[in-house]
Amino acid sequence: MVGAGQLARMTAQAAVSLGIGFRVLAAEPGSAAQVCAGVQIGDYRSADDLRAFARSCDVVTFDHEHVPGPLLAALEQEGHSVRPAREALRYAQDKLAMRQRLAALGVACPRWARVDSADDVAAFAEDSGWPVVLKAVSGGYDGKGVWVCATPDEAADVLAHGIDLMAEEYVAFERELAVLVARSPHNQAAVYPVVQTIQQDGICREVLAPAPGLDGDTAVAAEQIGLAIAAGIGVTGMLAVELFQTPGGLLVNELAMRPHNSGHWTIEGATTSQFEQHLRAVLDLPLGSPAMAGRHAVMANVLGGDDPDLHGRLIHVMAADPGVKVHLYGKAVRPGRKVGHVTAVGDDVEDLRRRARRAASYLRDGTEQD
Amino acid sequence: MVGAGQLARMTAQAAVSLGIGFRVLAAEPGSAAQVCAGVQIGDYRSADDLRAFARSCDVVTFDHEHVPGPLLAALEQEGHSVRPAREALRYAQDKLAMRQRLAALGVACPRWARVDSADDVAAFAEDSGWPVVLKAVSGGYDGKGVWVCATPDEAADVLAHGIDLMAEEYVAFERELAVLVARSPHNQAAVYPVVQTIQQDGICREVLAPAPGLDGDTAVAAEQIGLAIAAGIGVTGMLAVELFQTPGGLLVNELAMRPHNSGHWTIEGATTSQFEQHLRAVLDLPLGSPAMAGRHAVMANVLGGDDPDLHGRLIHVMAADPGVKVHLYGKAVRPGRKVGHVTAVGDDVEDLRRRARRAASYLRDGTEQD
Repeated sequence: MVGAGQLARMTAQAAVSLGIGFRVLAAEPGSAAQVCAGVQIGDYRSADDLRAFARSCDVVTFDHEHVPGPLLAALEQEGHSVRPAREALRYAQDKLAMRQRLAALGVACPRWARVDSADDVAAFAEDSGWPVVLKAVSGGYDGKGVWVCATPDEAADVLAHGIDLMAEEYVAFERELAVLVARSPHNQAAVYPVVQTIQQDGICREVLAPAPGLDGDTAVAAEQIGLAIAAGIGVTGMLAVELFQTPGGLLVNELAMRPHNSGHWTIEGATTSQFEQHLRAVLDLPLGSPAMAGRHAVMANVLGGDDPDLHGRLIHVMAADPGVKVHLYGKAVRPGRKVGHVTAVGDDVEDLRRRARRAASYLRDGTEQD
Repeated sequence: MVGAGQLARMTAQAAVSLGIGFRVLAAEPGSAAQVCAGVQIGDYRSADDLRAFARSCDVVTFDHEHVPGPLLAALEQEGHSVRPAREALRYAQDKLAMRQRLAALGVACPRWARVDSADDVAAFAEDSGWPVVLKAVSGGYDGKGVWVCATPDEAADVLAHGIDLMAEEYVAFERELAVLVARSPHNQAAVYPVVQTIQQDGICREVLAPAPGLDGDTAVAAEQIGLAIAAGIGVTGMLAVELFQTPGGLLVNELAMRPHNSGHWTIEGATTSQFEQHLRAVLDLPLGSPAMAGRHAVMANVLGGDDPDLHGRLIHVMAADPGVKVHLYGKAVRPGRKVGHVTAVGDDVEDLRRRARRAASYLRDGTEQD
């Protein structure tokens, strides 16, 4: 796995059970690199480092989407199994290409346009109205690279960054959903129950599985969107599709082609975790059951606070609630950074939410904000 | 963790989630040593190797009971935290000491006696009748070191080995149960639901959690025995108590002070796995909930067969049953050796048994013997 953050760290845990040798290409010796037996320190932007890493693996996969396309192409040309393949991964790297491809597949998306100038934005806003969402065509994550512009002046400030941008309609959604699909080179696919995600400042804070009160038709529609995209762009491995639920139906917001924050609940909450599923898929093994392991699962992200002593607070969280599952990522604590998550599985979703949020809040800063 | 077999391997997985640095002292680079970032190759019978290892750890614990007592005492004298402590661990190392201690605690056991000669065995058999069970006082595991002797001649053959022996009454049990208890230095204890274990040739083949049809009084009695022993001998970490269920009540068969084969089901079947619980206990963290995560869980051990190609068979098992959870230990396949296990969680215990046994059987030799 290229990249050694929490996604690689949790994939490493899954690899142990299956007896799969697991190596990471890590920029630095933290997170996944702390816990893997096979660590190569290197740069995912270096052709030499990537090539050396690929030679030590049967299959190369990723915990992020940032490996430059030409380097992926070179690995493929040299005969390495790259999964997802460059041809699929580009739709997670280039939001314009993604929108074009989804349009061709007939998948509903917010209105969008490439924008190069204030005039382009103004023209787009004539149809969509303000605010207008400007997005970096590539490189964004966790709300970075996304700007909600209320006025032409705000848009001008973003345009001044000089990066490739696209405009998207500001969607007044009812809520955000996500659907996770695994797909293998054999074309086997498995779809997890549709979840609700709750974001704050562009960062996922909470995931409710399954999405509470979701009607059957919408659930099926979301699953079909996920399966259609996975097949349409030829993903291998996990695909996460972030959706807006609106009065007019579902709109696709973003794609990710790897295990995804909206699927961390699957470690305890599903028969097969998304991390095991990703390994099965990229190794072309039969996929595991994506069924819920309990009635409801709620995941809350642990963000870093001002005090780095996570361990001191962990003891109190363990004492306060022996039933929540804490996952720490072995990352340096910085304010707002994802440093762990908490999952609670059970029958009463509001109770699970309260418990997961309380534990996550306490781990952040020792308070029990709800 | 001293020792690097499957118990250490699965404990390593649990340590990752809690952000706990985990190191193993491994005799060779297999199983846990394949998947840990922190591996010291060394000999648990070497004072120097143990001391060097202990210096790299805050707490030392074990995946087996074979570290010689004097070396444990030396580590403790040098100020290392050894958990369980030597004083507790000796009852897992010395079956005579264990029987004496349990007698002092008032815990019911099979009749037993130290035996040094054929005359001693004959005298014991006058009370207990034949067959007589002879056990090595120390060093046995998985049926090794246990001989069921039908006649004085068979007993004489065992006596001829020249090892320290004890005799035990042959118990015509209804079935075998096990109770797992965690205990921390703070005296917190947690007890898992009582399970039924099914042995064949002295090796655990199957574990049913909870023990089907166990009446409430017997379940409580088993839990009380586990808690009484844990407190009575001052265990820290996991304690496994193997029990005989007989018409006259429960009798203690064996003790283990570490994660135990009878608790592998807890990875998917309980809120807190025994591996996480062992870490919490030896690190004096608050214990996790031992509650069932599903209604029933069944675990079947995967024994090695004649063909070492586990991976080739794994694909078929995954395809045949996407809901079973396979754990492979990264050990060389030898006939009869425990090389993995399979767990199934759900509502119908007979269905779970069939699925777990089928998967384990197929992994062994490509057959689906039930």
